Amino acid sequence: MKIIAIVSGGLDSVTMAHVLAKRGTGYRPENEVHVLSFDYGQRHKKELEYAKQCAADLDSPFDIIDLSSLTKYIGGSSLTDDIAVPDGHYAEENMKITVVPNRNAIMLSIAYGVAVACQADAVAIAVHAGDHFIYPDCRPKFISAFEQMENAAIEGFGNARLLAPFINSTKSDIVEAGYNAGVSFSKTWSCYKGGEIHCGTCGTCVERKEAFLLAGVEDPTIYLR
Amino acid sequence: MKIIAIVSGGLDSVTMAHVLAKRGTGYRPENEVHVLSFDYGQRHKKELEYAKQCAADLDSPFDIIDLSSLTKYIGGSSLTDDIAVPDGHYAEENMKITVVPNRNAIMLSIAYGVAVACQADAVAIAVHAGDHFIYPDCRPKFISAFEQMENAAIEGFGNARLLAPFINSTKSDIVEAGYNAGVSFSKTWSCYKGGEIHCGTCGTCVERKEAFLLAGVEDPTIYLR
Repeated sequence: MKIIAIVSGGLDSVTMAHVLAKRGTGYRPENEVHVLSFDYGQRHKKELEYAKQCAADLDSPFDIIDLSSLTKYIGGSSLTDDIAVPDGHYAEENMKITVVPNRNAIMLSIAYGVAVACQADAVAIAVHAGDHFIYPDCRPKFISAFEQMENAAIEGFGNARLLAPFINSTKSDIVEAGYNAGVSFSKTWSCYKGGEIHCGTCGTCVERKEAFLLAGVEDPTIYLR
Repeated sequence: MKIIAIVSGGLDSVTMAHVLAKRGTGYRPENEVHVLSFDYGQRHKKELEYAKQCAADLDSPFDIIDLSSLTKYIGGSSLTDDIAVPDGHYAEENMKITVVPNRNAIMLSIAYGVAVACQADAVAIAVHAGDHFIYPDCRPKFISAFEQMENAAIEGFGNARLLAPFINSTKSDIVEAGYNAGVSFSKTWSCYKGGEIHCGTCGTCVERKEAFLLAGVEDPTIYLR
């Protein structure tokens, strides 16, 4: 199966790419994973180096789609603009500022365009249960509506499925899946602040620490605090 | 009502922008139309000048989203690549080559991102009945599925409706609507070949000529043949 995997370079998407690439080993042929990343002007652009590393480790094709021209139109998020990234755990009010409007629909629709162009069988995205509360475009209702929309959009030209293998997983489930798939977690980047090392205090760092703790897997990440 | 209107500079979308801007005249305030165009590496890039003109005529904000970096990934169409644009009437087999994979879903998802960022009430696209046969992403089923997907995607952050006012109109209906709204049709561009003047023989030129004829409206277009 040929899969266009949206990989940010974070823990979730890198783990997903490894898990998908490993599926089908043994007598069946392995999946062919194509790693697709997006530059949307995120301040933590450094994650893209980790996405590239993921593709290299999987011996997969790698492409970055440049959407930086969108930033001036679709701004107002702390992930792209000069607004402080909030510290603390994911909680609706302070994390809303990390929402980039309609980001997953934009990335998925481009990934589907690529999938039709190269006749891929699936598009994959690493949304997970921990994202549901804040981000509407990470919820099962969105994923299912998106796949239905694409069935209509590409009818007669392709029929890629939409895979969201972690949709009902917690982040600690993902750490466990990555551990079992042999993922080197030090080759993943989570911190939204995009400094030299993980800050340890932003929402995604707090979540990352907690996930390793809950999964009982050693966390190789070096945190500032 | 604030509307993000996707305008290519063609007859259909320019007419739509004029009709939407004029709706609500009289005692109610007029709609505020924001003209949004896309550079996706189309060979008929010239149409973008007509989109800009449309925005100027309506005294509307105008933006071009640069998606030209997608062209190398989402190629294989005669609208973007070095493949001859076929002549003749729209007929499935020879016009399939003018399909840019997933184009409407990509443009609409970006337009929705803009709509959320500026709290617009609607996104509008000028798909029409004549496009249904070849382009799946111009059909009512797609439009309805797209709106449902966006309802899920932006829940809690915005609630823009998806307007497709010409979804059940023929191109001659659009010419009639444009005539009634006072559109200067010479300020619209249809030809896919993007030469100095309309070629008169590509699918969209043939369709354009026919639409004026059927509507009984004088066609101001100068055609090569």
